[in-house]
Amino acid sequence: MEIAMIGLGRMGANMAERLHRGGHRVIGVDPGEAARASAAARGFDVSATAAEALAKLSVPRVVWLMVPAGEVVDQTLASLSPHLSEGDVVIDGGNSYYKDSMRRATQLLEEDVTYLDCGTSGGVWGLQEGYSLMIGGDAAAVERVGAIFRTLAPAEDRGWVHAGPSGAGHFCKMVHNGIEYGMMQAYAEGFALMQRKTEFNLDLGQVAAAWQHGSVVRSWLLDLSADALSRNPQLDGIAPFVPDSGEGRWTVAEAIDLDVSAPVITLSLLERLRSREKNSFSDRMLSALRNQFGGHAMVKE
Amino acid sequence: MEIAMIGLGRMGANMAERLHRGGHRVIGVDPGEAARASAAARGFDVSATAAEALAKLSVPRVVWLMVPAGEVVDQTLASLSPHLSEGDVVIDGGNSYYKDSMRRATQLLEEDVTYLDCGTSGGVWGLQEGYSLMIGGDAAAVERVGAIFRTLAPAEDRGWVHAGPSGAGHFCKMVHNGIEYGMMQAYAEGFALMQRKTEFNLDLGQVAAAWQHGSVVRSWLLDLSADALSRNPQLDGIAPFVPDSGEGRWTVAEAIDLDVSAPVITLSLLERLRSREKNSFSDRMLSALRNQFGGHAMVKE
Amino acid sequence: MEIAMIGLGRMGANMAERLHRGGHRVIGVDPGEAARASAAARGFDVSATAAEALAKLSVPRVVWLMVPAGEVVDQTLASLSPHLSEGDVVIDGGNSYYKDSMRRATQLLEEDVTYLDCGTSGGVWGLQEGYSLMIGGDAAAVERVGAIFRTLAPAEDRGWVHAGPSGAGHFCKMVHNGIEYGMMQAYAEGFALMQRKTEFNLDLGQVAAAWQHGSVVRSWLLDLSADALSRNPQLDGIAPFVPDSGEGRWTVAEAIDLDVSAPVITLSLLERLRSREKNSFSDRMLSALRNQFGGHAMVKE
Amino acid sequence: MEIAMIGLGRMGANMAERLHRGGHRVIGVDPGEAARASAAARGFDVSATAAEALAKLSVPRVVWLMVPAGEVVDQTLASLSPHLSEGDVVIDGGNSYYKDSMRRATQLLEEDVTYLDCGTSGGVWGLQEGYSLMIGGDAAAVERVGAIFRTLAPAEDRGWVHAGPSGAGHFCKMVHNGIEYGMMQAYAEGFALMQRKTEFNLDLGQVAAAWQHGSVVRSWLLDLSADALSRNPQLDGIAPFVPDSGEGRWTVAEAIDLDVSAPVITLSLLERLRSREKNSFSDRMLSALRNQFGGHAMVKE
Repeated sequence: MEIAMIGLGRMGANMAERLHRGGHRVIGVDPGEAARASAAARGFDVSATAAEALAKLSVPRVVWLMVPAGEVVDQTLASLSPHLSEGDVVIDGGNSYYKDSMRRATQLLEEDVTYLDCGTSGGVWGLQEGYSLMIGGDAAAVERVGAIFRTLAPAEDRGWVHAGPSGAGHFCKMVHNGIEYGMMQAYAEGFALMQRKTEFNLDLGQVAAAWQHGSVVRSWLLDLSADALSRNPQLDGIAPFVPDSGEGRWTVAEAIDLDVSAPVITLSLLERLRSREKNSFSDRMLSALRNQFGGHAMVKE
Repeated sequence: MEIAMIGLGRMGANMAERLHRGGHRVIGVDPGEAARASAAARGFDVSATAAEALAKLSVPRVVWLMVPAGEVVDQTLASLSPHLSEGDVVIDGGNSYYKDSMRRATQLLEEDVTYLDCGTSGGVWGLQEGYSLMIGGDAAAVERVGAIFRTLAPAEDRGWVHAGPSGAGHFCKMVHNGIEYGMMQAYAEGFALMQRKTEFNLDLGQVAAAWQHGSVVRSWLLDLSADALSRNPQLDGIAPFVPDSGEGRWTVAEAIDLDVSAPVITLSLLERLRSREKNSFSDRMLSALRNQFGGHAMVKE
Repeated sequence: MEIAMIGLGRMGANMAERLHRGGHRVIGVDPGEAARASAAARGFDVSATAAEALAKLSVPRVVWLMVPAGEVVDQTLASLSPHLSEGDVVIDGGNSYYKDSMRRATQLLEEDVTYLDCGTSGGVWGLQEGYSLMIGGDAAAVERVGAIFRTLAPAEDRGWVHAGPSGAGHFCKMVHNGIEYGMMQAYAEGFALMQRKTEFNLDLGQVAAAWQHGSVVRSWLLDLSADALSRNPQLDGIAPFVPDSGEGRWTVAEAIDLDVSAPVITLSLLERLRSREKNSFSDRMLSALRNQFGGHAMVKE
Repeated sequence: MEIAMIGLGRMGANMAERLHRGGHRVIGVDPGEAARASAAARGFDVSATAAEALAKLSVPRVVWLMVPAGEVVDQTLASLSPHLSEGDVVIDGGNSYYKDSMRRATQLLEEDVTYLDCGTSGGVWGLQEGYSLMIGGDAAAVERVGAIFRTLAPAEDRGWVHAGPSGAGHFCKMVHNGIEYGMMQAYAEGFALMQRKTEFNLDLGQVAAAWQHGSVVRSWLLDLSADALSRNPQLDGIAPFVPDSGEGRWTVAEAIDLDVSAPVITLSLLERLRSREKNSFSDRMLSALRNQFGGHAMVKE
């Protein structure tokens, strides 16, 4: 098929290359000259603007957005809109909030353009291993661009799903990331506990490696853990500072909205907030209160 | 009544003074010369050893232990034991683990000495306001030394309870402290949230003061919070480092033993552990994993 | 002063009565005939519509809203608006979301009407004991209607605070309720633990009563606990089903928005959600997974 | 090699068969006639008593214990002890508490018998896929019986680790299970959230299947989830009742002992306790308190 890949960042460039390798005609779009040069070196066509790229594709066209979630998606759609025509399919493969995707699908439908939301998992390894894709939107459109999904996925018939109507794809990806937070925190706590047990002098990389085969906790995240710990067993030089990208927050808010108690996903998010607190006011308050009622000494800064 | 108060630390000296003021004959015991001198200046008799103090009291005697929980209690009992005689009552007013108290009561019973476990709450304010007392052990003995409890409590008929058999007093005190952890953490989180909301420029001391009267959250801990925040609204100079004294841990362990889910008390304890982590391994692990799968930059130390 | 109290539910009727007793001229407004009749029996004037009530007051007028948060407030303001004139002060004493209050204040300012947001705590006991009030909005207006606040509060000079600009009052009330959730959960867990410790056969009402005097955990909520437990020690006949009113959710969302980790307040909310789950899907999933990997039997429904 | 497998339950019988298939001479030991008959049908030798089995093996002998953790292990060792001789190696492959294993190793060393603690993961799938093994104890002994570990593991050189001195094996297994609790809870919460989002009518089995390939959350537990959900998408007929086997409790206690905050593993355990509460006293207490201060109706049983 022919496809325009808008956004040639880490994810977009890899996905464009995987599609290109898979025999599709890909036109990568990015305003950045360096991004375009790097993409061109990977063998596929590039354009500086979406308008230019769309002009090169035969109609109806397929456009894949791989840009930062939020306002950038709306801006990109606004600039795309004049150049789209009836029957085109636009796929948002980024980490958009599913309610934004539902709104955008409704808006584009007024122009007879189909909008699909596609949660994309796999990170930097997706180029080689394929991406796990969760797709929301019109079934006929999903079928029409199925060749694209089959190439991006790890295999033709696995690793992708038409999850449901508009929004369902990004909803599933949001939950996927919430689960990811919980799993990561579970491993992190377990390895922290083993690291603290100095009397056993455990080699965490070797323990992780043993778990990779046959254990109940084997997983891809464990493979990555084993790799990280075998190269840097004490994680020296890494700061205990953990960003979060938004999807964890949405998952927590959605769970509360739906009256679902999700303590582990929630605490995993709070732990990340906590990792970034430099001088916790609540902890200082506890220290002040202990001093007040018990005369306990406060540690001074 | 006559009573020996063993241990003239912050709590013991205050309790001895309250008993002395209440008309009891008190002999304070402490190996430390300074502690004895300070106690003597408060008007009651002192001795360097329990043996000396016991010799001054008419039998059957009442002995109150106010020493650090754990081994010190057992050591104190071992040194007391040769000097005790049938009918004496020993009261442990410290923060002992209730199962230790049950064991000690059984041991002393073999010597016809009654052991009472008395959870004591009130901190440094107890001298003036009285102590809340939760007592475990033989009912007849509790009645016999009731005059002591009535003087230590805020009022003759309130602020103290014979909770149940041996261990029941320290058990209730343990749970009391677990609740205390949860309440403190709730206030700390709330004030931290208001402090972070800089757009409102809230005066936390004034808000706390307004809550002291008529609000659902009014409490003695809030009174202390209002006092602390009115004097130091930003808690300047206080480190976010919160010790824990053991009773929170016992409460968490007991809850799990009894299959009771107590998430708030448990998380309050974990938050204190967390406050003392300088370079969390689990947070560094999360950062390393994010880098592994997403290529996200790690913050370096 | 003169004041119209719009909404004669449990809270509004009590507040109107407290103002009436305090010497103010109160006109209660409620569309419900029964509510008006009941209010009239308490001694103050009533009207069926706000328009009618406003017409009876001399300008500039003071109007207090005590209606359910959300759309009802906007509807009430819409119906009030044509009858308001320059200089009037409208006070929302309900549990509105603080961002709604900020929006409403801006809207009314265009009509030269001042809007104050007043968080009101105290529940059904406020009539006798006074209410704790946290007020947001224009300082001059707060001063102008100060006599109202002084009467509603437990005392002239305590129990109320002008917290800050528009929104600050309801923001503080929101946090107040978050703290309330955490405190309630801490007590509930502690009493549950004591109730489960059947070997001590504790009388929870007596333990709570002893804590009311001199203990670190004494509070108004403990007073209520002691009362409830002394009358119904096993809480017989009460279902383990706990509603939540919205303010806890807002507090949790705000904390996450501000990157403040508030695990205890958050878990207190989740516990309420959990109390209402009849057939938890996540627990069934855990059971299914244990069966899958370990061959453990699943309990059937 | 030759080996006695003591305990022919679900795990022991499978492990004996895998060793038998791997060319080792296995004598299975179980007091139960049915267990022995079933084992004999799988092709390997059986005995009713350990004494009988030991007499058939050439010295020094290798004995593998696969019996329930706790007292049964001590009883088994007591009955084995008279029949062991210098140089024998006893391996505890069950879920023993690591401190018990350290104590037992010290005791057996006095009889010149080497005790190895081996955490065994893999569940009912281990027969075909091999077991992940974490071994603690003397390095020379581990090397001597290495052929056993290499056969039980998924491959000769992977899936097993000599983790450290006595206790290290069961310590790692304990942490492994703590992580397992956290991961299971993370998946369970995520699927519960998707199940509750009825507007998307998600097919959870299909979503899980898509995640199995290429996603960040792919794992063996996800494979099992996909299998369970594809066969029973609503988990009909399964009760929300989740047992726990002890290792989660030990992990939580160990974390607190070591001052490591492990909120996700801890909450995963508490959630299981919670799943088994039929009539939560703490929830009833919350309901009673809401009624006390706010006049909110209580739901009756």
